[in-house]
Amino acid sequence: MNKQELENLLNEVAAGRVAPAEALLQLRTEPYKDLGFAKVDTHRGIRQGMAEVIYGAGKTKEQILQIVSAMRAESEKTVLITRMAPEAAVYVAESQPLSYDELSKIGIVGELPRKDGIGKIVVATGGTSDLPVAEEAAKTAEVYGNEVVRLYDVGVAGLHRMMDHLDEIMSARVIVAVAGMEGALASVLGGLVDCPVIAVPTSVGYGANFGGLSALLSMLNSCASGVSVVNIDNGFGAGYLASMINHMEGK
Amino acid sequence: MNKQELENLLNEVAAGRVAPAEALLQLRTEPYKDLGFAKVDTHRGIRQGMAEVIYGAGKTKEQILQIVSAMRAESEKTVLITRMAPEAAVYVAESQPLSYDELSKIGIVGELPRKDGIGKIVVATGGTSDLPVAEEAAKTAEVYGNEVVRLYDVGVAGLHRMMDHLDEIMSARVIVAVAGMEGALASVLGGLVDCPVIAVPTSVGYGANFGGLSALLSMLNSCASGVSVVNIDNGFGAGYLASMINHMEGK
Amino acid sequence: MNKQELENLLNEVAAGRVAPAEALLQLRTEPYKDLGFAKVDTHRGIRQGMAEVIYGAGKTKEQILQIVSAMRAESEKTVLITRMAPEAAVYVAESQPLSYDELSKIGIVGELPRKDGIGKIVVATGGTSDLPVAEEAAKTAEVYGNEVVRLYDVGVAGLHRMMDHLDEIMSARVIVAVAGMEGALASVLGGLVDCPVIAVPTSVGYGANFGGLSALLSMLNSCASGVSVVNIDNGFGAGYLASMINHMEGK
Amino acid sequence: MNKQELENLLNEVAAGRVAPAEALLQLRTEPYKDLGFAKVDTHRGIRQGMAEVIYGAGKTKEQILQIVSAMRAESEKTVLITRMAPEAAVYVAESQPLSYDELSKIGIVGELPRKDGIGKIVVATGGTSDLPVAEEAAKTAEVYGNEVVRLYDVGVAGLHRMMDHLDEIMSARVIVAVAGMEGALASVLGGLVDCPVIAVPTSVGYGANFGGLSALLSMLNSCASGVSVVNIDNGFGAGYLASMINHMEGK
Amino acid sequence: MNKQELENLLNEVAAGRVAPAEALLQLRTEPYKDLGFAKVDTHRGIRQGMAEVIYGAGKTKEQILQIVSAMRAESEKTVLITRMAPEAAVYVAESQPLSYDELSKIGIVGELPRKDGIGKIVVATGGTSDLPVAEEAAKTAEVYGNEVVRLYDVGVAGLHRMMDHLDEIMSARVIVAVAGMEGALASVLGGLVDCPVIAVPTSVGYGANFGGLSALLSMLNSCASGVSVVNIDNGFGAGYLASMINHMEGK
Amino acid sequence: MNKQELENLLNEVAAGRVAPAEALLQLRTEPYKDLGFAKVDTHRGIRQGMAEVIYGAGKTKEQILQIVSAMRAESEKTVLITRMAPEAAVYVAESQPLSYDELSKIGIVGELPRKDGIGKIVVATGGTSDLPVAEEAAKTAEVYGNEVVRLYDVGVAGLHRMMDHLDEIMSARVIVAVAGMEGALASVLGGLVDCPVIAVPTSVGYGANFGGLSALLSMLNSCASGVSVVNIDNGFGAGYLASMINHMEGK
Amino acid sequence: MNKQELENLLNEVAAGRVAPAEALLQLRTEPYKDLGFAKVDTHRGIRQGMAEVIYGAGKTKEQILQIVSAMRAESEKTVLITRMAPEAAVYVAESQPLSYDELSKIGIVGELPRKDGIGKIVVATGGTSDLPVAEEAAKTAEVYGNEVVRLYDVGVAGLHRMMDHLDEIMSARVIVAVAGMEGALASVLGGLVDCPVIAVPTSVGYGANFGGLSALLSMLNSCASGVSVVNIDNGFGAGYLASMINHMEGK
Amino acid sequence: MNKQELENLLNEVAAGRVAPAEALLQLRTEPYKDLGFAKVDTHRGIRQGMAEVIYGAGKTKEQILQIVSAMRAESEKTVLITRMAPEAAVYVAESQPLSYDELSKIGIVGELPRKDGIGKIVVATGGTSDLPVAEEAAKTAEVYGNEVVRLYDVGVAGLHRMMDHLDEIMSARVIVAVAGMEGALASVLGGLVDCPVIAVPTSVGYGANFGGLSALLSMLNSCASGVSVVNIDNGFGAGYLASMINHMEGK
Repeated sequence: MNKQELENLLNEVAAGRVAPAEALLQLRTEPYKDLGFAKVDTHRGIRQGMAEVIYGAGKTKEQILQIVSAMRAESEKTVLITRMAPEAAVYVAESQPLSYDELSKIGIVGELPRKDGIGKIVVATGGTSDLPVAEEAAKTAEVYGNEVVRLYDVGVAGLHRMMDHLDEIMSARVIVAVAGMEGALASVLGGLVDCPVIAVPTSVGYGANFGGLSALLSMLNSCASGVSVVNIDNGFGAGYLASMINHMEGK
Repeated sequence: MNKQELENLLNEVAAGRVAPAEALLQLRTEPYKDLGFAKVDTHRGIRQGMAEVIYGAGKTKEQILQIVSAMRAESEKTVLITRMAPEAAVYVAESQPLSYDELSKIGIVGELPRKDGIGKIVVATGGTSDLPVAEEAAKTAEVYGNEVVRLYDVGVAGLHRMMDHLDEIMSARVIVAVAGMEGALASVLGGLVDCPVIAVPTSVGYGANFGGLSALLSMLNSCASGVSVVNIDNGFGAGYLASMINHMEGK
Repeated sequence: MNKQELENLLNEVAAGRVAPAEALLQLRTEPYKDLGFAKVDTHRGIRQGMAEVIYGAGKTKEQILQIVSAMRAESEKTVLITRMAPEAAVYVAESQPLSYDELSKIGIVGELPRKDGIGKIVVATGGTSDLPVAEEAAKTAEVYGNEVVRLYDVGVAGLHRMMDHLDEIMSARVIVAVAGMEGALASVLGGLVDCPVIAVPTSVGYGANFGGLSALLSMLNSCASGVSVVNIDNGFGAGYLASMINHMEGK
Repeated sequence: MNKQELENLLNEVAAGRVAPAEALLQLRTEPYKDLGFAKVDTHRGIRQGMAEVIYGAGKTKEQILQIVSAMRAESEKTVLITRMAPEAAVYVAESQPLSYDELSKIGIVGELPRKDGIGKIVVATGGTSDLPVAEEAAKTAEVYGNEVVRLYDVGVAGLHRMMDHLDEIMSARVIVAVAGMEGALASVLGGLVDCPVIAVPTSVGYGANFGGLSALLSMLNSCASGVSVVNIDNGFGAGYLASMINHMEGK
Repeated sequence: MNKQELENLLNEVAAGRVAPAEALLQLRTEPYKDLGFAKVDTHRGIRQGMAEVIYGAGKTKEQILQIVSAMRAESEKTVLITRMAPEAAVYVAESQPLSYDELSKIGIVGELPRKDGIGKIVVATGGTSDLPVAEEAAKTAEVYGNEVVRLYDVGVAGLHRMMDHLDEIMSARVIVAVAGMEGALASVLGGLVDCPVIAVPTSVGYGANFGGLSALLSMLNSCASGVSVVNIDNGFGAGYLASMINHMEGK
Repeated sequence: MNKQELENLLNEVAAGRVAPAEALLQLRTEPYKDLGFAKVDTHRGIRQGMAEVIYGAGKTKEQILQIVSAMRAESEKTVLITRMAPEAAVYVAESQPLSYDELSKIGIVGELPRKDGIGKIVVATGGTSDLPVAEEAAKTAEVYGNEVVRLYDVGVAGLHRMMDHLDEIMSARVIVAVAGMEGALASVLGGLVDCPVIAVPTSVGYGANFGGLSALLSMLNSCASGVSVVNIDNGFGAGYLASMINHMEGK
Repeated sequence: MNKQELENLLNEVAAGRVAPAEALLQLRTEPYKDLGFAKVDTHRGIRQGMAEVIYGAGKTKEQILQIVSAMRAESEKTVLITRMAPEAAVYVAESQPLSYDELSKIGIVGELPRKDGIGKIVVATGGTSDLPVAEEAAKTAEVYGNEVVRLYDVGVAGLHRMMDHLDEIMSARVIVAVAGMEGALASVLGGLVDCPVIAVPTSVGYGANFGGLSALLSMLNSCASGVSVVNIDNGFGAGYLASMINHMEGK
Repeated sequence: MNKQELENLLNEVAAGRVAPAEALLQLRTEPYKDLGFAKVDTHRGIRQGMAEVIYGAGKTKEQILQIVSAMRAESEKTVLITRMAPEAAVYVAESQPLSYDELSKIGIVGELPRKDGIGKIVVATGGTSDLPVAEEAAKTAEVYGNEVVRLYDVGVAGLHRMMDHLDEIMSARVIVAVAGMEGALASVLGGLVDCPVIAVPTSVGYGANFGGLSALLSMLNSCASGVSVVNIDNGFGAGYLASMINHMEGK
């Protein structure tokens, strides 16, 4: 119940068309979401036109299809499914217009929205093993209406490769830096640009990587300003935040 | 050497006014900083009008004064000094127009710039012991030209206190969530709003706080979208990033 | 044997009426279990009418059936089996009146006792992935005679969902807060109510969850009074303790 | 605004005595605290007659006195100050009826309430170095109206000392087990009794104690049912929770 | 080459029967083991009559058989194989007199030596899940000629079970305390007896057990004198050390 | 009280010859301490002639003197004080025959007992910074009647220094290996000898020593048989256990 | 573009044969790799004649073959494939001259280069379980043209085995010390020789090995000079660095 | 006793000039250091002309002077004192030709040796706070006869600063990369050059630096080849190893 609806309800009460007791019931039953919060349900998205999200891990293919169907029945929105198993993709694709990317385990039902982000989002990785997480970030950003530039395998141990893409790096409005062993990527990029850098440590690696801990600590300790960090392997979170920043209007 | 200067140099060579060997020397001597990077020095700031920063920890009061004086001699900019010891403040204030805040250990030499940020930055804390870090973030944001709303002691164990400030929370363009024991603050705020939330874990606490580790892990594991994390106690980093986002222009 | 009896015994020995060997035997054999402790065997339960418990993990289906049969032969009590593999359930169900819940891996042989707990126990979870542990807690509490209210998926990142169930939360006598990523749940609930909150961190999650460590630390650092913590994934322990508190008589 | 008040407001709207717009405003302005929560402020205590609490660490003696005075001005309640520095105690005692215990750093202003807890709370420690934390728990419980039995230095490495106090242990309604090196205390006590055991790990120790981590892990891994854990050194939290349980009424 | 042999060699040189160059070669080729050390090869055992040991993990069944055969060819000694896979046992048993225990994964080829240990070794466990490690310790001790008393499932959460076996505990010359969750076992036993207690933490458990870390830290922090610790799950090491102590002669 | 006696007692009660209250009293009072344990108080020592021990850390000089005086009044035994501050030593020496070693912070009141240990105890260290812990072990062993051989600074990085003392090493009945950085010492010694090696990790070091963790883990992972570990810096524990083993009689 | 090429380009511009705009384009397109760096691509090797490397983990057999083929098409160099699955080896061997070692998972396509290293590289291991990592180091060194001496199973717990190979150890120009449980190997070797020792901790082990952490910490804390450490299990890195040092020319 | 001396001894025996028993004694008394090791004492240095080293931490000023005097009395060598307190420096300087650097706490007695290293050693740091450790490395390298190039404050967050010194970086024979927060320095340098890079993590930093752990893990996980790591803050170790490599002769 938004502000307008609440006003309407009170008008109805004032006009005698709704009994106070009935209004009371409505106000008590859903005490919170009716109080005019901008964001009534994080699962339903923030603005009209935005995609729905399903976290696919731990859900059966039947559950996923059921949720997709219900969402699609309600509206024509795009539905984004993260961490979707290949079998679930096969199953859902039988009855829904699904496009699926096996690398990132991302499934998208429906049309991608038009690109209404203000600038470009650069998604960069240190190595090829970071691609699944990077693609999760990139595809998430695309589903939310952003133009994404992928700069993969530009790790700091081969600085010239990064330098070859300096123009693209400098033109970014937001950068998502995905790296496992080489948490250094976020620092180096953060030192080159003056836009926000969202660092995503990945659990990919070996030895004293400790499931992403080395990259996480390295990124948190970045000396470059404008760098912040999301959880290990959280490509979706980075893509979502990048899109949020890329859609921020000026004055 | 920017693109234009490089073109000029080549034109000079073509015109015979600069010998190829001399051009070679120039191109070799400063191979990097002349290639047109927007951000040649992270220490010199990004745009005209922005404040200079000195990290005060580990510097003597004489060193701090020396750097401040040099910066002031060059221009009329504001200078921000973080982690400044009280004795250094007394010393610098003798010859420079310093305002100093003992709580956050922040010193500011010169005038605050006009508030040219697009929206408001909310700095929220879970408890009173997080104030020093929160003030470092808040004052940093102010020095960079932002309007800051302080919501202190709104920890999730007393949810009603947060709710009392719902309007201010909802009106933020960026939120900095500072919390030690209660890393939960970032999650709860992130669930309420649809703007970026920058989480700052603090080392303040006792028991199994482990120097901020509990809050850090809690914030990284936030289920709310739009939350990212900076280093433990890094109020400056959060304030700087918040300002960066708050100054992003629309299309 | 009290001091006086010991003195008597020694006098008897001194007088030749008790042989030293016999006295020795008395003093050394079975000194403990016969001495009238209220709780002679933690595995046999505390009061008549209470269920027996078998920790199913690491036991073969034959072993489980054997123990169940022995317990049932001795009395008509209910038997609770935790961490029971589905195959063991199929096997035991062939000869015993077993009801089995695959989600929580809980098996119950025999009738549930009547609900003799004083109030209601609320079991709340932050997300759907915490359900197995939550159900272990809930079913354990039910087996011990409690009325259980389940509030699942009320994580703090969607505060309105928790608020929708405020009446149920406020009416609890004990709350079990089960959460993996969002250890914040215990803090927020602990801040709302004035009854004991038993926090159960779960190992479910990803990234810097570290097998439940993030939720564990977050819960231990809760700023809300009345919150205590059991081991990661220990739904049984929480349900048992909740039942113990819910059965405490007044004066 | 409780249910009755909300009903009244709606009636006023229905009767035309309150304009819908004005009702809207009221419903928006204070969306939360008016919704009938039992516990509007965790800092003000839960029931009449209960003590106020001030966390003294990090507060100046002047701040503590100021808060104490304000609380005392409002009512005649007892005020409990935890982690109070000796100098603050001297300062506050000049103008307030303070009793102060240097060991536990607990200060109490005003009279202790009458003992209205239902049973006895046993506070046990493994060694003498755990006394400060144990006294914080014990005094907290006393301030909240409980009879406390202290069993100090009954660590499991000298089992006979614990056995000497079996009667007191068996007669407890709640037990607080405080131990640093010997986290085993909670397990052994939990195996003897059938009442809740609240375990408090302490940071006191040396070697691989790691600031209380060894006791914390040991207590979390207790095999005894009915044991839960609070934060390292959190004597106040344990005493408060023990009191909460000890005041729970029967049917 | 022992002292006598070295003396002989030098005598041979003095007598002209061995050329200095040849003696030089002998002394250089095996510079170490010839210098009269008591323990020339840890793999070959210390005294005549002692069993050989093969660490079976990571070796193929063919490799194990090959080593066993070579050892048996050389002498009639007993061969102990630890961490032996069931398939390897089947394979070796085809051609060697192997007795194999599936629980402890211990295989023994040949006859057990006569029990020449001075006293009894008690192997105690906290729970049934610690049995594999405990059996590894017990069988190792038996292979080295010790009488072993097994006290399984005497965890401290059920103190009366331990007390039922007080006589056996008090009569031990060495105790091996094996425990996973309940590292407390070592402390309690160490407090009861005045013989060496060798503590073996096990990785068996769940939650914040962290692969045996909780028990390891608990055991290291034991307040009882006479307790020392071996590596997690190192049943062999404990059994070997227990045997070593149990064979120490008096003056 | 055995099963028969319990049955008799209950029969007596049934027959009216024993009042229930009296039976209750018998069953509940002082069940334990009268049962004739060999080791009634771990603080009083195990055998006649053995020294008393006071853990001096955290005790005031007055408390230490008081305990010493009480012990001395009771008997003529030696009293060992560990972790004794220099000021406490000065204070106690005024009225007691104290010898004090500032390095190890060990104080001894009274005569050293005659050396009745069976063999020699070797205390070896890896570096000079491990001396305080090593001396705590050595002096403890001496106070308990052992002959101690000190081999200091024989770290494995200078193997020849260890080799220079091979005779002394080979002649030990028990070895205490004290090392901080170089946990390797225990492994190398354990590989050379066939007597028990008690490893003591020390917290002395720098870098990734982590308060003794590196040495602790290294020692636990020793591949040499016969090695066990005590807590970090626990020289007393090692010396005590070494003495216990060194006093074990043969058949 | 090397120095010469840059000079040529500038000469072309001076001569009017290349337009300044075109030169500008060339200089901008590849801003970095043309500036005369010695090492333009870490993936392409440093000097002519050196082998190419493919990190096989996480690549499909088709991808590996494709890369190998492309490399071989370009030149006749040797190609080294690390962490290569047996199936990939079978697949690649069908069309390429592959030699494959299952133990180290190393594949080599083409001829081994001639041994042009200056001295010998000794690769030593503490136990047999470290062989896979040691072979990765050894084969890597061989592929880069070094003579390798393997000293396997010379752990410090059996010092005489190491001493048997003293001559080989003393004759090394670089030593690679590979050890899991026994990180001590690096210290002992480092103390014996005066050449660089590269320590490789391995994750092989059990108990408190914690995935190689124990060996890693032990090696970092080595007291021997000249020891440095690479990542856990990083045999390739150690072999590569050893080769680099072994090819360093004198003046 | 080297090979020649051993041969001589045997010849003497053969010639009857030395009795076998006497030879036996000699061979037994010093079994180790006589066997021809190149490096009999790590404390005495490796080659003539090399400096002696004293680790100053934990030694009194008197002890340091005493050792220095003894060393100087024996020869004219240079003596290097690391971790030397300023007071010790004042004290030693009174009677010895000491030069002391307060930043690195390095003292040098006597003349620096001539620079006989083959190439240049570059010591680079990420920030100014890493200077003490970097100077310890640099001064150590100088004392051992190397030419050192210092590149301080060239952290990766300001890449252009590193690029300004590309020529010096490329000309290094060995690089020591010292960094605290920014462990990335080693990776970036390792990617640019093809000489050994010795990485030294420093404990300087704040937040989730955890005493150098973040830099340590980051450096261990470097993707650049040729990088190895020494202990946290171990500037001496890095300088020593760099010198060792820089003195390696070619064929």
